[in-house]
Amino acid sequence: MRLTILGCHSATPRADKAQTSQILSTTNHHFLIDCGEGTQVLLRKAKTKFAHIKHIFISHLHGDHFYGLPGLISTFRLLGREAPLHIYGPKGIKEAITILLKLSDSWTNYPLHFHELSSKVPTLLFSDEKIQIHTIPLKHRVYTNGFLFTELSKDRKIIFDAVQKHGIDVSQINNLKKGKDATDSVGRVIPNKTLTLDPDRAKKYAFCSDTAYFPEIIKVIQGADLLYHESTFLDDNEELAIRTKHSTAKQAARIAKSAHVKQLLLGHFSSRYKNLELFGSEAAEVFPNVAIAHDGMSIDF
Amino acid sequence: MRLTILGCHSATPRADKAQTSQILSTTNHHFLIDCGEGTQVLLRKAKTKFAHIKHIFISHLHGDHFYGLPGLISTFRLLGREAPLHIYGPKGIKEAITILLKLSDSWTNYPLHFHELSSKVPTLLFSDEKIQIHTIPLKHRVYTNGFLFTELSKDRKIIFDAVQKHGIDVSQINNLKKGKDATDSVGRVIPNKTLTLDPDRAKKYAFCSDTAYFPEIIKVIQGADLLYHESTFLDDNEELAIRTKHSTAKQAARIAKSAHVKQLLLGHFSSRYKNLELFGSEAAEVFPNVAIAHDGMSIDF
Repeated sequence: MRLTILGCHSATPRADKAQTSQILSTTNHHFLIDCGEGTQVLLRKAKTKFAHIKHIFISHLHGDHFYGLPGLISTFRLLGREAPLHIYGPKGIKEAITILLKLSDSWTNYPLHFHELSSKVPTLLFSDEKIQIHTIPLKHRVYTNGFLFTELSKDRKIIFDAVQKHGIDVSQINNLKKGKDATDSVGRVIPNKTLTLDPDRAKKYAFCSDTAYFPEIIKVIQGADLLYHESTFLDDNEELAIRTKHSTAKQAARIAKSAHVKQLLLGHFSSRYKNLELFGSEAAEVFPNVAIAHDGMSIDF
Repeated sequence: MRLTILGCHSATPRADKAQTSQILSTTNHHFLIDCGEGTQVLLRKAKTKFAHIKHIFISHLHGDHFYGLPGLISTFRLLGREAPLHIYGPKGIKEAITILLKLSDSWTNYPLHFHELSSKVPTLLFSDEKIQIHTIPLKHRVYTNGFLFTELSKDRKIIFDAVQKHGIDVSQINNLKKGKDATDSVGRVIPNKTLTLDPDRAKKYAFCSDTAYFPEIIKVIQGADLLYHESTFLDDNEELAIRTKHSTAKQAARIAKSAHVKQLLLGHFSSRYKNLELFGSEAAEVFPNVAIAHDGMSIDF
């Protein structure tokens, strides 16, 4: 998986910092997660092909997480898109977008599918042969979900030299990938282990923004390879974090530690902080493998 | 008057070009005209104080002219604004903004006044002792207005040396500014012309975007000091201009010439054109005093 941060800052605008949006690229998808104002321009800057985006996940309906969506939908129309677009977000998102499209008399010429969410338990949103996506119910001032992207077990990797040496017919390759033994041309059983290697480990990405400190998510995101968790504030503003239902860097680190994730990525920083390194140092006291997001960064994991 | 172009490009997004929005600064106001996506960041870049913006004029409800408005309204709230904000735009704008605020549970803590427009004749929107603002009904795919900003006649300018020499009491200054004669300490009438100079000429700015070629506006914008007129296309796409109800550079120039404006500023360029100088050269064949807008430019007039 590759995560590309388009924007990772909180709501008040700055000339050089963008609001939340990111692209998760998997074997066969580019998922857009949140869509703050200006996302379409950030996608251009990141050289992401608009046609690659087929699924958009919106965590909640605060402006800094979805006011870029109407413009992106309109731009897809202007560029002649024909492929369907799926939008997953809180109940109400369909009404908002529909009114904007109606006012501009600009109905999309491509199918626009809304998947409106209101459940407060983890819910399967999407699955295919390679990935499953569930909600991670969060605790914020309005109804909010994070999203958990779980790759399904991957195929075993064929050792082509061994397959050739044993004269295994290509018709058996798919069975080998699934872990079955093969039979050679004279009927001998060749064990799977002789012909394949263990698959790459299936990866798991958890996106959690915005939320108060909310330990209920720990069981949902358990063992994730990468956890993006908001940390709007430092310890100095823990009271403010509680009042606005945001998290501190240290609270995010506590979640990461308890969930045994492999890496923590912090974002959604309040504009009051000039030195973002402090987020890393406060979090590292609790959970050492922590990184600070910045607009335009990519992480492969 | 000073016009600052925040963005002047048409809808499809580019990494370095912004959609329509501009600030008209007058003696005592900063009027925001249109509000494409990202306007709040452009205001930051132009170092415009958010508190200075009290009146926002939206020409029409296509996204590239108003999808920056919800974010700006939200940001004003986050920054603790208390001053009222007046928004002038087509009928429907109140419903759209209201739904977005409701979904985010973020009602403004400052008064938000919508002035919804539906008239097809020039209509007075705002006036004070220094300026009047009228709509300029345009012809586009949806209901659209331009805006005409007309300074009111200014005061005559006092010649302080002459006032002192003739021993004119300060109580007569306001009358002198309005053109009345004065009386000196021994009762002699001193003619106004002796004590004052002609006032600075009152200025007129006409904003026209987006519109098909529409000669009906000529009488409305007659004699404007500056006309901003969209020119989405060059001559090579005149047919497309007609179909999409936009203008070519030359059509904008014809309007400028017939209306005897002093200067023409072109904007809203289609992304298909790389060399924007061509807009200037095609327009100049009809109307020589033409300039090409670019994001961040300012014009004093």
